[in-house]
Amino acid sequence: MRVQVLVRLKPGVLDVQGKAVEKGLQGLGFSDVDNVRVGRLIELDLESDNLDDAKAKVSQMCEKLLVNGVIENFEFCTL
Amino acid sequence: MRVQVLVRLKPGVLDVQGKAVEKGLQGLGFSDVDNVRVGRLIELDLESDNLDDAKAKVSQMCEKLLVNGVIENFEFCTL
Repeated sequence: MRVQVLVRLKPGVLDVQGKAVEKGLQGLGFSDVDNVRVGRLIELDLESDNLDDAKAKVSQMCEKLLVNGVIENFEFCTL
Repeated sequence: MRVQVLVRLKPGVLDVQGKAVEKGLQGLGFSDVDNVRVGRLIELDLESDNLDDAKAKVSQMCEKLLVNGVIENFEFCTL
């Protein structure tokens, strides 16, 4: 199955990249843009025919490698 | 409205970051992972009460700043 993981900085964590994008957009005339946050999109194929098993594996992957749990949250879904 | 933009490398474009993540996951024992692709997740507030207008604006933002159209595709939705 194809799995999509969305990784976001936790609320309250300063998003320098998001701020830079926000300034850039506003500088280009998109003045009605606010509160830009930039995260990561990770998509992967996982060989599994059991959804619960897949969920457990993806959670482990996030905790061990994909996500910095101190400053980031994640959510995932199957495509 | 809150807008979510997903930016992906086009199919066929080498995803070095994705390959690195794939090797990392496999090295940690997740041997059933394949075809990892890493993209960007951009979320922003857009002041607009017209969905068509908002869509046009987000497309412009993507073309002008958020996305490298040579190697990347994007899709977006409202949250």
